[in-house]
Amino acid sequence: MTLYRIEFEPIGQQGKSSADKSMLECAHQLNFGIRSTCGSQGTCHSCKIKVLSGTVSGPTSNEREAFSSQELKEGWRLACQTYPTSDCKLDIPEESMVMRQRLQIEGLKVTVYPKPPVHAYKLSLSAPSVSDLQADADRLLQMLKKQQGIYCRSIDIDTLRNLSPRLRYLNWQCQVSVRDDEVIAIADWSSRQLGLAIDLGTTKIAGFLVDLNTGQLLTAKGIVNLQASHGADVISRISYAMKSPAEKERMQELAIQAINQLITDLCNDVGAETTEILEVVMVGNTAMHHLALCLPVKQLAYSPFVPAACRALDIKARDLGIHITPGGYVHLLPNVAGFVGADHVAMLLSLAAHKIKGVTVALDIGTNTEISLINNGQISTVSCASGPAFEGVHIRSGMLAASGAIEWVRIIKDKVHYQTIDNSPPIGICGSGILDTMAQLYLTGILDRSGKMKDNHPRVRTTENQLEFVLVNEDERNGRPAIVLTQQDIRGLQLAKAAIRTGIQVLLEINSLSEESIGQVIIAGAFGSYIDITSAITIGMLPSLPLNRFRQVGNAAGVGARLTLISQRKRSEAQTIAAKICYIELATAPYFMQTFIQAGYLGLYRMRNGKREEIDTNLSIK
Amino acid sequence: MTLYRIEFEPIGQQGKSSADKSMLECAHQLNFGIRSTCGSQGTCHSCKIKVLSGTVSGPTSNEREAFSSQELKEGWRLACQTYPTSDCKLDIPEESMVMRQRLQIEGLKVTVYPKPPVHAYKLSLSAPSVSDLQADADRLLQMLKKQQGIYCRSIDIDTLRNLSPRLRYLNWQCQVSVRDDEVIAIADWSSRQLGLAIDLGTTKIAGFLVDLNTGQLLTAKGIVNLQASHGADVISRISYAMKSPAEKERMQELAIQAINQLITDLCNDVGAETTEILEVVMVGNTAMHHLALCLPVKQLAYSPFVPAACRALDIKARDLGIHITPGGYVHLLPNVAGFVGADHVAMLLSLAAHKIKGVTVALDIGTNTEISLINNGQISTVSCASGPAFEGVHIRSGMLAASGAIEWVRIIKDKVHYQTIDNSPPIGICGSGILDTMAQLYLTGILDRSGKMKDNHPRVRTTENQLEFVLVNEDERNGRPAIVLTQQDIRGLQLAKAAIRTGIQVLLEINSLSEESIGQVIIAGAFGSYIDITSAITIGMLPSLPLNRFRQVGNAAGVGARLTLISQRKRSEAQTIAAKICYIELATAPYFMQTFIQAGYLGLYRMRNGKREEIDTNLSIK
Repeated sequence: MTLYRIEFEPIGQQGKSSADKSMLECAHQLNFGIRSTCGSQGTCHSCKIKVLSGTVSGPTSNEREAFSSQELKEGWRLACQTYPTSDCKLDIPEESMVMRQRLQIEGLKVTVYPKPPVHAYKLSLSAPSVSDLQADADRLLQMLKKQQGIYCRSIDIDTLRNLSPRLRYLNWQCQVSVRDDEVIAIADWSSRQLGLAIDLGTTKIAGFLVDLNTGQLLTAKGIVNLQASHGADVISRISYAMKSPAEKERMQELAIQAINQLITDLCNDVGAETTEILEVVMVGNTAMHHLALCLPVKQLAYSPFVPAACRALDIKARDLGIHITPGGYVHLLPNVAGFVGADHVAMLLSLAAHKIKGVTVALDIGTNTEISLINNGQISTVSCASGPAFEGVHIRSGMLAASGAIEWVRIIKDKVHYQTIDNSPPIGICGSGILDTMAQLYLTGILDRSGKMKDNHPRVRTTENQLEFVLVNEDERNGRPAIVLTQQDIRGLQLAKAAIRTGIQVLLEINSLSEESIGQVIIAGAFGSYIDITSAITIGMLPSLPLNRFRQVGNAAGVGARLTLISQRKRSEAQTIAAKICYIELATAPYFMQTFIQAGYLGLYRMRNGKREEIDTNLSIK
Repeated sequence: MTLYRIEFEPIGQQGKSSADKSMLECAHQLNFGIRSTCGSQGTCHSCKIKVLSGTVSGPTSNEREAFSSQELKEGWRLACQTYPTSDCKLDIPEESMVMRQRLQIEGLKVTVYPKPPVHAYKLSLSAPSVSDLQADADRLLQMLKKQQGIYCRSIDIDTLRNLSPRLRYLNWQCQVSVRDDEVIAIADWSSRQLGLAIDLGTTKIAGFLVDLNTGQLLTAKGIVNLQASHGADVISRISYAMKSPAEKERMQELAIQAINQLITDLCNDVGAETTEILEVVMVGNTAMHHLALCLPVKQLAYSPFVPAACRALDIKARDLGIHITPGGYVHLLPNVAGFVGADHVAMLLSLAAHKIKGVTVALDIGTNTEISLINNGQISTVSCASGPAFEGVHIRSGMLAASGAIEWVRIIKDKVHYQTIDNSPPIGICGSGILDTMAQLYLTGILDRSGKMKDNHPRVRTTENQLEFVLVNEDERNGRPAIVLTQQDIRGLQLAKAAIRTGIQVLLEINSLSEESIGQVIIAGAFGSYIDITSAITIGMLPSLPLNRFRQVGNAAGVGARLTLISQRKRSEAQTIAAKICYIELATAPYFMQTFIQAGYLGLYRMRNGKREEIDTNLSIK
């Protein structure tokens, strides 16, 4: 098949592609991300590109919906619907690009005495001779026992494959890394013992490089989960993986590719070799866990939504394709249920949830939001499909929390005051900005309690038959599209926030508790760390409680992963917590539907048995 | 690079090859064997082919040595020296073909109570439901404990990857195979539990398919070790593997490729699935062991000749590329030294060597011959580089023990009486035939004690300046080359047999024993099973003892492998034996050189302190 040269401007990347590959696939082959959240269905309209030169396939019906005929004439197209018919030059607008994002990687400060599962021992061996013919591996194991009192039953096969030349190169002075009763690595005396904690999120993957012996965090970084190009939420990813074994493997490859890139980046940061990493702990939601391990996901997609495995797993990194020391392991913390994963267990571990006194609600807001209610050490947990709206997905001007995203908004009279990440010129609006805008629209009366927008403000206008609030207009952006929040966006956000509020409410009712009895609300996750709690309460996403009861703890799942990386005791605590959790299927809870409908309303209110009781705004906030 | 079509007659196989690949490489790519014992150096002249049509590269100096100018004109060439320059048709004479050989796979009959390391348990699980959300793996392990009292700590990752669809397909009735505390396979209730014992020889690989629960041998087969195309003996193979990591990997691939073919053949034989094989035991000499595992071999090639590992190993079959059930293991019995491998340990185990009363000599004759002297349970062992001569390699008319090989010879007056394998027309002479011929030549006075050939017989002639004895002449073969034993062949065979006799002698002297004190001589291995003991004694390869003290036991290493396949107790006995063995470096033994020189003589004699004392023939044989 003929190959065409495709150039992507303004990035300047180029590659070859054939007529049967869409521009989106071509970009992914070149390993740079064009946003796409619908799994190339042509429905999310987030992969907009402009054809600058060359010929392409004709516009599809989805593209006729996405663009006016004028725009189509100008060359605007959806990358997932467009195929080259000659060499092409394309313009990728900033809005369509997946950028390196800001990432919440600071977590709770928890201290633990390090006792990692891998320990290194220094050995001094004598070289073999005609009078001492012992084999290399036997010699090593014997001296490990003699000099260090450590009995090992086996040597990893990859380690064994390098052992003989390695020992000679090191002049028989070596450092032996032992895990359980297995030798997993041989290194020189100066080699470090590093560990890696990974928080495998649906959207983002966070990595923490740690000194295994001291527990010290050496560096941390985030990277986009490359699976995102096949759908923004876990359901689309599962559907994709269910298409065929090849597509399931592709999903694994994408996750592992990102993880390996992250490993390289982290190691470069501190001048380490990737082989100095001896152990990995990985946490993620159950779907991410299964996709990264290439476990079957079909049974996750259909009732009763059962995971292939919940229990903690130890898998050779090479069996997953993860590039650390060849004999090293990946430890996966236990999952709880089909939609409550090890990341939630890790978060609860970082909070020492099983030891908390009183009533605590702990939630990690993401495309899927897991919420636990801890009632004097008893833990009940629900999972809400809150969707990716708070990550800017399926929102007209939404974007991830990257440079140029509006993250803070206040509406004072006719004027909109906002702040962007890095103070860059605004290009979209991210989760915390969306939440602020919604709260401000409600407080200024542009939205009523039901979420209906009124045309009572100079920045409200009608476009394509629906009302929208204009944060930044076309003129302010020098002719580029305005940044807006539409009536349709509001409806989507109401569903998302209703899901979260409903989750909290169901947990309270099952435990026969009232909102006021909640001693603290712990909000974890990147999004949760940046939101203005007042705004979240104002739109009724969180219950109306004194602000000092809320704690935003950042990436608590990452902290939990780090704890289990350096402490075997913490690993067993994680298993204790996972076993303790009483998982509640949200949809089967009493008053679920009524609660969910009422929880869509904006403003401050208390809930009880699916009923909503309003609170006077002036009394409870501040 | 242009690809040429190469046709091989009379087999009728054809393939594509480029100008930078020799005809030998092309044949190997097509997976059929042309003999080659020098590692493509052009020196062994065993890869003779005839170009029938097409053009090829010009003859090299090696080829000018191998062929007369007339032969070159007729198209005769060495496959390893010849490169195509157009499409070609080649004739492969029978002598140049590596054929499927006769193989000694019947061994000792030893009985053992089967207690294999893998056991399968039948389980009946209940399907998950909204009121029973336990994950599939957790459910399985819980019921394994509950229904069978078996606690497992882990599930193999490949097994886990198939678990969910498998359980549903099997309607939750499954058979769980457990090894130590790991689940390694899930199957239906009717699935068998099979095991495979492999005797990985330098020349041949023997496989034994066994029912793990009963120990019953279901079928046995042999296959050529494909590594043979890179050298006939372990030293050439090690040299090849040392060239580069790619070549080391190539050696592993060739061994594994043959093993996987063997697995397919064995399974086809009994209508089994390869995934019904749950465990493999593999024995071989140390070099074969290292090459099959892709372990480093450089330290095996230089003094003090130390193995990378001697201890028993358990390795996931998939880490070696061996196709059995994906979670299954390969168990490797312990090696003893650089040139005494697990095959010898397996042989000693099959003899229960550690329990033998009195004095026994046990030897496995091959390209490398390992000899143990068992003195009331004490075991001392040497290794002799006897070379591949007895396997027909580097012998002018030599061939492996395949159809058409002369295997039995008597010279009566002017006539040669012989017998071929399968009674096929003679095409060469194999080990047992060579030994017979040598003994007959000595007994008829054609050879003197020193091995010098005399021109005193009508079938002795001079060709290329050396004497040769003609077993079958050109006329008797309708114009094809005569089958002969040359003076140079005799010299090579003398070295080989001297090595063996020296090994026995050194062991006796170190144990301060005389030849007469040997209660039994156990001869294992394919070659050793077919030889005429009288002939072996006549040429002084074996000590002159009453014939009833000799036992030919066939593939005892294979029997040992089978014992350890079905019995964990036998595995620990093998380790006891390996630990008990006192390995003696032959070259450092007292009187080694003198003994070796004297042991080259033909005829019957006793040895002592490097001296030879002749025995009157008429007295001691029969």
